[in-house]
Parts: sequence; C-alpha cells; structure tokens
Amino acid sequence: MAVRPVDATAPGADLLSYDGLRAQLRGVGEERYHHQHPFHLMMHEGRLSRGQLQAWALNRYYYQSVIPIKDAIILSRGPDPAFRRAWRKRVIDHDGDGTAHNEGGIKRWLKLAEATGLDAEQVGAGSGILPATRFAVNEYLNIVRSRSLLEAVASSLTELFSRDLISLRMEKLRQHYPWLSGGLAYFEARLTQAPEDANFAINYVCENAKTRAEQELAIQALRDKCDILWAQLDALYFAYVQPGWPPPGAFLIEGS
Amino acid sequence: MAVRPVDATAPGADLLSYDGLRAQLRGVGEERYHHQHPFHLMMHEGRLSRGQLQAWALNRYYYQSVIPIKDAIILSRGPDPAFRRAWRKRVIDHDGDGTAHNEGGIKRWLKLAEATGLDAEQVGAGSGILPATRFAVNEYLNIVRSRSLLEAVASSLTELFSRDLISLRMEKLRQHYPWLSGGLAYFEARLTQAPEDANFAINYVCENAKTRAEQELAIQALRDKCDILWAQLDALYFAYVQPGWPPPGAFLIEGS
Repeated sequence: MAVRPVDATAPGADLLSYDGLRAQLRGVGEERYHHQHPFHLMMHEGRLSRGQLQAWALNRYYYQSVIPIKDAIILSRGPDPAFRRAWRKRVIDHDGDGTAHNEGGIKRWLKLAEATGLDAEQVGAGSGILPATRFAVNEYLNIVRSRSLLEAVASSLTELFSRDLISLRMEKLRQHYPWLSGGLAYFEARLTQAPEDANFAINYVCENAKTRAEQELAIQALRDKCDILWAQLDALYFAYVQPGWPPPGAFLIEGS
Repeated sequence: MAVRPVDATAPGADLLSYDGLRAQLRGVGEERYHHQHPFHLMMHEGRLSRGQLQAWALNRYYYQSVIPIKDAIILSRGPDPAFRRAWRKRVIDHDGDGTAHNEGGIKRWLKLAEATGLDAEQVGAGSGILPATRFAVNEYLNIVRSRSLLEAVASSLTELFSRDLISLRMEKLRQHYPWLSGGLAYFEARLTQAPEDANFAINYVCENAKTRAEQELAIQALRDKCDILWAQLDALYFAYVQPGWPPPGAFLIEGS
C-alpha cells in the first residue's frame, strides 16, 4: 500500500479514526521498513559471507547498545507512573538484571556477534563500526530528545513490523548459516517482547494524537525511524558488498 | 603520512609541541579528508553526469544550511568577547547581510544548485535529501553541542585542507562542466574565508589543549569531522553511482 501524502493543514483534513491511523502507520512500514533492503534479502537467500555477517553484527551492536539509552530518555519524559511502568520494561529487556535468567538483549546480541566469530570485547568497545552507523543511530537519540513525546513513542513503532521479519530471519539464518544457530537467543526473546511493546505504543499514539497535524507528526516520526534502519543497511552494503569500500578506520573483513 | 595511534594516558605521553600537534592534525587530513573520496575523484575527472552533480548540490546544501547553526552554537559557548568577535565572522560569511554585496555562502550555494539545473526553492526546502546526509550533518551539531569547546573548535579544522581542494575543484569544474561556471561564487569566497578561519582555529587549539589528553581529544574531533564529510560522499555514491540505489523518498535523477 502506498502512503498518500496528506496536507494536514488543508481544510477538511479531518482526524483519522484509530483504524485509519493504524492503516497509515502500517503503510509506512510496507513502503520503508528494512525488510525489503537488499542486504537483508541477501542474508535471507544465504548469499552473505561470514565476514559480511560479522560486519552486520558489529555495526548493529551499536544500535542495540543505544536502544536502552533511547528508552531511558523516553522514560525520563514519561508523564505519569503508568506510562513509566510500561516503558521501563524496555530498559530491563535490553539491559537485563545481571543474572543468567535475564541477561538482556545487549548481552544476547554480543553472543550472536561471537557466533559470527567476532571477539565480544572488541564488539563491545565498538571499534571499527562505520561512522554512518553511528550517525544514523545517534539521530534516533536526537529524535527522542528533541521532538514531542508523541513522536518519540511513534518512532518506536517499527516494532509493529519486526515480528514477521525476525521469524523469517531465524528460519533463514538456521537454514543458510547453521553455525550461527547457537547465537539466536536475541531474536527468540524479541518474538514476544516486540509485539507487547508495539501494542502499548500504538495505543498510546492513537489516544494521544488528538489532531490531524499530530497524527501526521507521528506518521513522519515512524518514517524517519524507518530511514534510520534503512541507512544502516545502505552503509553496510556500500562498505562490504558493493562497491565494497569501508571508510578509513572501519572494520575490514579478514582476507579482503 | 600515517597517524600513529598514541595512548595519551601512558607514562611518558608528553605534551606535543605546537608543531608536533599541527603535524598530527595535518596527518589526519592526509588520511581521512574527503579530497580522496571516489565521488570527488570522479567529479574532478569529469565523469559525473549532470544528474549526479544535482544530487551532490542538493545534499551538500543541507550541510551548508547547517554550518551557521553549528557556528552559532560555538558562538554561544565562546568564553569571551575576543573569541566571539572572531567566530561571529563565520555566521556572517554564511548568512550574509541581506545585500547583494554580501549575499552569504548559503545563497551562493543555492546559485550553484541552480546552475546544475535544480530549482532553488525546492533545494532550500530540502525535500529529497538522503537521510544519511541528514544524519551525518546532524552529528556535527551533536559534536559542537556535547563535547568541550576545544573539541568543537577542532572539529572545524577540515578548513586547513579545504583551500587546496577548492582550488582544484574550481579548475576541474570549469574544465569538465563549463555550464556550471556561472555558479562558482561560493567556492571563490571560500578561497579566502577558509584559511582565515582555519588560522584562528588552529591557534586556539594549540593554545588551549594544555595536556596530551586534550590534544588527543582535539585530534579525534578532527577525525570525526572528516568521517562526517566522507560519509556524505559514501551515501551519494551508493545512491547515485554504484549500485545506484536511492533510499525510499530520496531525489531521483531525471530519466533514471
């Protein structure tokens, strides 16, 4: 479904119904979410090398490591205890509680990176990540700091689309890269976490976008978040697939 | 010259002399400044199409438009009238004074964009710029806001290297794209502005980096700034040269 641009200031630009707003948000995902990115298509077709998967795991670690910071910023802007109780779950999901029972998403991602053959300590230090990864991820922090709380919450709504992508990815990683199978706990956990989180966030957005202009701001925030995910894969593709030019100082695939 | 990494916390990590620090900063430029980027090499060899030059002018406009904002942030952090008097020149250079005598760098860049065949109003609105451009440029704002004033000033030191690149670029643009020749006033002005600005900034950095650790932070800020410039050209190359995949919503070259 294509998203039709709407001039929210035009006369007759009426408030969308909850269903109408949900349809618009889903339309953004169909058009811009990174499930369609060529880097992911290559991954799912088994056409990425181990080195390319390492570059992906290394760079995506930076994104993972920033997510609980992003959520803590939103938490700090939460208007009431009920909102903050719901949102703090995300920080716990990613940071864990320091026990083996809940090691948290960051630790789980490190295990995935280790399964690709990288050293967890080096990944954690972040050396060699692409500057473009850092810039895209930092923009996510800019958005949740500088825009309205409504937009900050709406920017998380890529989680509406992540369950399907993660299900497919787990199947394809197991099929094409069986040596990675021991490192998939991150995705396993997200299969239930992401839909819970998305459910809270979309209800919040529907209830708190009280004008058409606010609804459009929420839709734009989701579009911008999709761009943040997409740009990370563009940068990986450019550096490690085609033309295959990592910028000065970036991770080099062994033997390349 | 390669930049040797230095552990500034190691015993015996002595303060660099002014000349030593200048040499390190110049070394960063030789290694990371975007004069060596393949997109610029293509430009200077006359191998870019008009559409590719349009994409460059459009995206680089966003960078230009943010520069006086970046400088106003540094101005706002300036410790004394002498510093602020020196720095405010930059804001004036880019914003002009509203007269034909000094129209300012942003306006001059718009004229370059027009010379490529783009509509100045559309360029000014920024629609179609690559998200990766926005993310890289916004990171420049993050740096001057969140790091020390010393690092904010040091991040401007790419101007040490810009005169040579601009001289070469003007010669090559006139040679290979004579239809652009009427739009080069921006570069003409920068030939004198940039060295003046760089001269003030490098003296400030030399005098205010009082420990080896501070010197290393200044060098790192310049490295990070080079990454910001480099990433913008990576994104242009990926979207408009090879593989030639603009992300959803980005400017499309006519006929592509």
